[in-house]
Amino acid sequence: MNFASDNWAGAAPEIIEAIARANDGAAPAYGGDDLTRRVEARFCEIFERDCSVYFVATGGAANGLALSVMTPPYGMIVCHEESHIQMDECAGPEFFTGGAKLLPIAGHAGKLTPDAVTNALRGFPHRPPHGAPASVLSLTQATECGAVYSASELKALCDTTHQAGLSVHLDGARFANAVVATGASPAALSCGAGVDVLCFGGTKNGCLAAEAVIFFDREKAKDFEFRRKRAGHLWSKMRFIAAQFDAYLHDDLWLTLAAHANTMAKKLSEGLAPIDGVEISYPTEINEVFVTFPDGLAEKLKEKGATFYPWVTPGDPAGGKMQRLITSFRTSAQEVQSFLLHVKSARQA
Amino acid sequence: MNFASDNWAGAAPEIIEAIARANDGAAPAYGGDDLTRRVEARFCEIFERDCSVYFVATGGAANGLALSVMTPPYGMIVCHEESHIQMDECAGPEFFTGGAKLLPIAGHAGKLTPDAVTNALRGFPHRPPHGAPASVLSLTQATECGAVYSASELKALCDTTHQAGLSVHLDGARFANAVVATGASPAALSCGAGVDVLCFGGTKNGCLAAEAVIFFDREKAKDFEFRRKRAGHLWSKMRFIAAQFDAYLHDDLWLTLAAHANTMAKKLSEGLAPIDGVEISYPTEINEVFVTFPDGLAEKLKEKGATFYPWVTPGDPAGGKMQRLITSFRTSAQEVQSFLLHVKSARQA
Amino acid sequence: MNFASDNWAGAAPEIIEAIARANDGAAPAYGGDDLTRRVEARFCEIFERDCSVYFVATGGAANGLALSVMTPPYGMIVCHEESHIQMDECAGPEFFTGGAKLLPIAGHAGKLTPDAVTNALRGFPHRPPHGAPASVLSLTQATECGAVYSASELKALCDTTHQAGLSVHLDGARFANAVVATGASPAALSCGAGVDVLCFGGTKNGCLAAEAVIFFDREKAKDFEFRRKRAGHLWSKMRFIAAQFDAYLHDDLWLTLAAHANTMAKKLSEGLAPIDGVEISYPTEINEVFVTFPDGLAEKLKEKGATFYPWVTPGDPAGGKMQRLITSFRTSAQEVQSFLLHVKSARQA
Amino acid sequence: MNFASDNWAGAAPEIIEAIARANDGAAPAYGGDDLTRRVEARFCEIFERDCSVYFVATGGAANGLALSVMTPPYGMIVCHEESHIQMDECAGPEFFTGGAKLLPIAGHAGKLTPDAVTNALRGFPHRPPHGAPASVLSLTQATECGAVYSASELKALCDTTHQAGLSVHLDGARFANAVVATGASPAALSCGAGVDVLCFGGTKNGCLAAEAVIFFDREKAKDFEFRRKRAGHLWSKMRFIAAQFDAYLHDDLWLTLAAHANTMAKKLSEGLAPIDGVEISYPTEINEVFVTFPDGLAEKLKEKGATFYPWVTPGDPAGGKMQRLITSFRTSAQEVQSFLLHVKSARQA
Repeated sequence: MNFASDNWAGAAPEIIEAIARANDGAAPAYGGDDLTRRVEARFCEIFERDCSVYFVATGGAANGLALSVMTPPYGMIVCHEESHIQMDECAGPEFFTGGAKLLPIAGHAGKLTPDAVTNALRGFPHRPPHGAPASVLSLTQATECGAVYSASELKALCDTTHQAGLSVHLDGARFANAVVATGASPAALSCGAGVDVLCFGGTKNGCLAAEAVIFFDREKAKDFEFRRKRAGHLWSKMRFIAAQFDAYLHDDLWLTLAAHANTMAKKLSEGLAPIDGVEISYPTEINEVFVTFPDGLAEKLKEKGATFYPWVTPGDPAGGKMQRLITSFRTSAQEVQSFLLHVKSARQA
Repeated sequence: MNFASDNWAGAAPEIIEAIARANDGAAPAYGGDDLTRRVEARFCEIFERDCSVYFVATGGAANGLALSVMTPPYGMIVCHEESHIQMDECAGPEFFTGGAKLLPIAGHAGKLTPDAVTNALRGFPHRPPHGAPASVLSLTQATECGAVYSASELKALCDTTHQAGLSVHLDGARFANAVVATGASPAALSCGAGVDVLCFGGTKNGCLAAEAVIFFDREKAKDFEFRRKRAGHLWSKMRFIAAQFDAYLHDDLWLTLAAHANTMAKKLSEGLAPIDGVEISYPTEINEVFVTFPDGLAEKLKEKGATFYPWVTPGDPAGGKMQRLITSFRTSAQEVQSFLLHVKSARQA
Repeated sequence: MNFASDNWAGAAPEIIEAIARANDGAAPAYGGDDLTRRVEARFCEIFERDCSVYFVATGGAANGLALSVMTPPYGMIVCHEESHIQMDECAGPEFFTGGAKLLPIAGHAGKLTPDAVTNALRGFPHRPPHGAPASVLSLTQATECGAVYSASELKALCDTTHQAGLSVHLDGARFANAVVATGASPAALSCGAGVDVLCFGGTKNGCLAAEAVIFFDREKAKDFEFRRKRAGHLWSKMRFIAAQFDAYLHDDLWLTLAAHANTMAKKLSEGLAPIDGVEISYPTEINEVFVTFPDGLAEKLKEKGATFYPWVTPGDPAGGKMQRLITSFRTSAQEVQSFLLHVKSARQA
Repeated sequence: MNFASDNWAGAAPEIIEAIARANDGAAPAYGGDDLTRRVEARFCEIFERDCSVYFVATGGAANGLALSVMTPPYGMIVCHEESHIQMDECAGPEFFTGGAKLLPIAGHAGKLTPDAVTNALRGFPHRPPHGAPASVLSLTQATECGAVYSASELKALCDTTHQAGLSVHLDGARFANAVVATGASPAALSCGAGVDVLCFGGTKNGCLAAEAVIFFDREKAKDFEFRRKRAGHLWSKMRFIAAQFDAYLHDDLWLTLAAHANTMAKKLSEGLAPIDGVEISYPTEINEVFVTFPDGLAEKLKEKGATFYPWVTPGDPAGGKMQRLITSFRTSAQEVQSFLLHVKSARQA
């Protein structure tokens, strides 16, 4: 009963097989190989336009490097106060950008609104060179609280942001889950809505270690290669990231994996909702269930072998009462069933 | 009628004279001169303990360099959302520290409370190595909204902060005004309350360009000299900063200058308060008056030659209605009088 | 006939199999898994002492992160002018360290001597805080020119360096080849000689993407975890690096792979040496052959399908006449044979 | 008998007077004042073109900030191995640029030649993204060894450098001395020869703390203001730097001061040259005399009250035998005379 993280699941078998397959013969290093070229082209198809695509191994690297190209080192990145770049990357964006400032702002379920962005910018007025000039809005799709922006919500945000002179970064560590949840096309949830740079996650959804940074305007990607190299994120044997994406994008494997994870979460959430004393904290839109348990329940479930973590939100004075349950491509219906039985039996005891 | 900034005032005559006096003969460069030694010792007297004292020319340098010694580059500095380090230093602290994160939090009139700090830390829980570990609390005395911490308020904050494992930085750009306002001793408002490092401002209060970074624990100052040098903040002709402080600290000139500025602000505030439609936004404790004017009044006053700036607060949806009037050692009672007359006459028109 | 780089070879089959095996079931993320623990312990056995061991995916990350813990940001790293950290990491060490200076010095075949180090330090005298204080000597074992330090040469270098107050970093991207070449124990070529931190390479010698940073003094590793995380080098699915090392270190696979590569290079070198007009530029000690071809020969060989790169040395006015031929665990005796035949036939034509 | 440094001399009386004069009345802060505008315009006159001019207080700040605008953070700055940015700024350029690499190269008397630059670039070939791409050549006029580039030498260097795709930075801490020594116009020794950015020093030549960064192409100065601010180098009371330059440039005071210093050095050098056992190490072109004394002489002179420092060059195995004697606007003919008498009498004893 692993609901701790989608990172606890290993890799999908298709991914491992693709890696083994890619190991055939010599191939140019550092991304000079044919497979890398082919997979880059595949991304352009999926996003319906000519993009610059760069592979790295971790989401933190993808976000940090993308942002470092998007902002001057004295710029300001507006983001949600619960976003991964603010809460979970150990000041990585500040490091990669050479010291850009993050301005964390609040919003329900990890989501931002055009009004919230406008207010934040108004509260940090442009007074060059005193205040750090706002340069980027960073959004997360799906959010850290499992919420999804619709294509039109995203478009409204991008429009507001561009009008204010900022560009838009999208942390898509769980982009696949959002595509499945909304039914919108990948393009509609990114470049079509105005996103400038997308960090397209593979790792949390069945890859071993594979993230793609996608610049929808090739011009703006210019120095990414140098930045990736100096940060030690250019793989010498790059074909092994390419191979992962090759399999991941083949026959919509990425959407199949995400659909399964989303379905499992839905089942979990629907099973938990009616149980007395259990409260679903946010709507379950992707593969994450946020739930508040009665006192003592979390401990009992952990004794039974369930793994999950508390969820703390910056603005929550209750701090730590909420739990986050994450499903993955690997979660089985039976795991969900067992967990629900344990919850029910614990509530009846 | 200059109420734009205490920086618009030049330097006090005593400061200029001291600079001229210090220009006598050759003296070792880079702070190796006798005057620098003597003034450092004078600071130890004033703060009633053995300190490490370093001179720089600007407040931004003082804050950034002090913080760079206090936090690892991946650490987190908790500060007020209206603090100078957050709003006015163009991401300088992020630059000097090599990428530390600033966590801005709210509080009335620029002040923080132990509860606010505790809540902020609880909302950004310690999960090494994922979240940036909180390393420093940065306070401002007096605050950007003209409020003052009493010695006991400061002590409560330092105690809470130290218990949480952070150290305390005090931005004292207007420390002199706070000392005068509270009547407490310099030590009581800093090291005595638990402050670890004080940025003691001179520039806003009559110096030409002089700030002192004071480490109350000499051990912790160890690499300041290297950091100051590489940042281009080690003056070759250091005696000319030392000379400013020599005069500034002599015969309590610093307190005399601040007392005058505080008195002028008080007069201004007391004159404005009863005027119909004018609202004093924060208590006037030092040399700053925050005031909300009826529509159109600010423009009329500017036409009459008054200079001042609007004050925007991050959380204020009204954005920009509040005005900040600053007095200085140079403000005359007559300037205040003229300004008040203009306000009154405009209100009667 | 791939002699372009050991990075062009994919991964050894045992490595791929180990990755597949490690994909069984859920496991804690971010290195909290049992396999990671076990492999760390295995490293301690191999190096005959208690070490702190950290996994990353690339050599650039290993070197940069290791150095960032070893030097203050204003410190100076002494290194060979042809070293990887100087020539091939796109200013990565400067990035990771927050701006430390590299002082490149000369030496035959990529090697440094105690005298060269002493002279370099004398020529950059300690004048705090003016010059960047020398903090680290970075060596490469085996060197970029295929030379190997004996255990006693290494010890002499470490002794000199420690006496001068610096610590010693060893870039061991081809450490395995050096162990095989010298016949010395891993400990004798690192901690036993006085090396403080070793970057133990796996990628060039048959891993997919696996490097270990080994601190021989655990105390000194303290903030590595934070730095690795913020730089995006902490894998969420860490077990997949651990699995590579598990196989790599099992039954001395690492030494078997390196021995094969070394042998192939020796064959190549011995075959080339007697050919008229061909000159072996450096002794062939590991899996690299440095050779100077007569004009036009390199082009002809490339037409026949051979891949290799020219080797440029900073001090060489001839610039680019030298060629570097690299063998790997995957190089076959037949590839070597074919290449030699092509050389001979070209020379006879 | 102060020959330790031109920094030991205080400020010229005209400079102090100008500061006092500038202290009249309120003036906009942060360089928004009229005097700053006027002095910027004066610089444009002197350099015979429209420039962007920025004031800072130290030479290290001027160099570091200028370079940070000229190079990407992963770029490479080619410089002389004895240059101030390499030897004396505690890795400041690496700090300001966010981690750019310095490539130190050799050359007689601190001078570089087109050939030396070409060879250095050839030895560090362009292999994106592996090697840090060379972005800037930094020259010093006059050099750290007191040598001067003629206008045509400078032009040849700039031409070679521009053809290689780099831009040219000129550290002009002693630019005034070079102008006097060559008799060329300020423009001919900078923009006219192809220099892109000049750090025009005032401090060493009689200012209190005043340096100007001059961009000859205004377009390229774009983000200097933000970088200066975040580094704490934007003075709030900027008029006090402007005032120094106002006086410094008035009636050619800067050239008068430099001419005096140069003359004193010439006298010193001419007096020393014929003395038995004393060897002039480099030609005396500006206000610096490099001299090798017989054993024991330096100590004797110091006992008599002379101050000067040994000069160590990176490539000099003799390390520390050479002495540097610096004169300044304040050096008197009598000081020189006394020193020479002491040398002579010590040699006769």
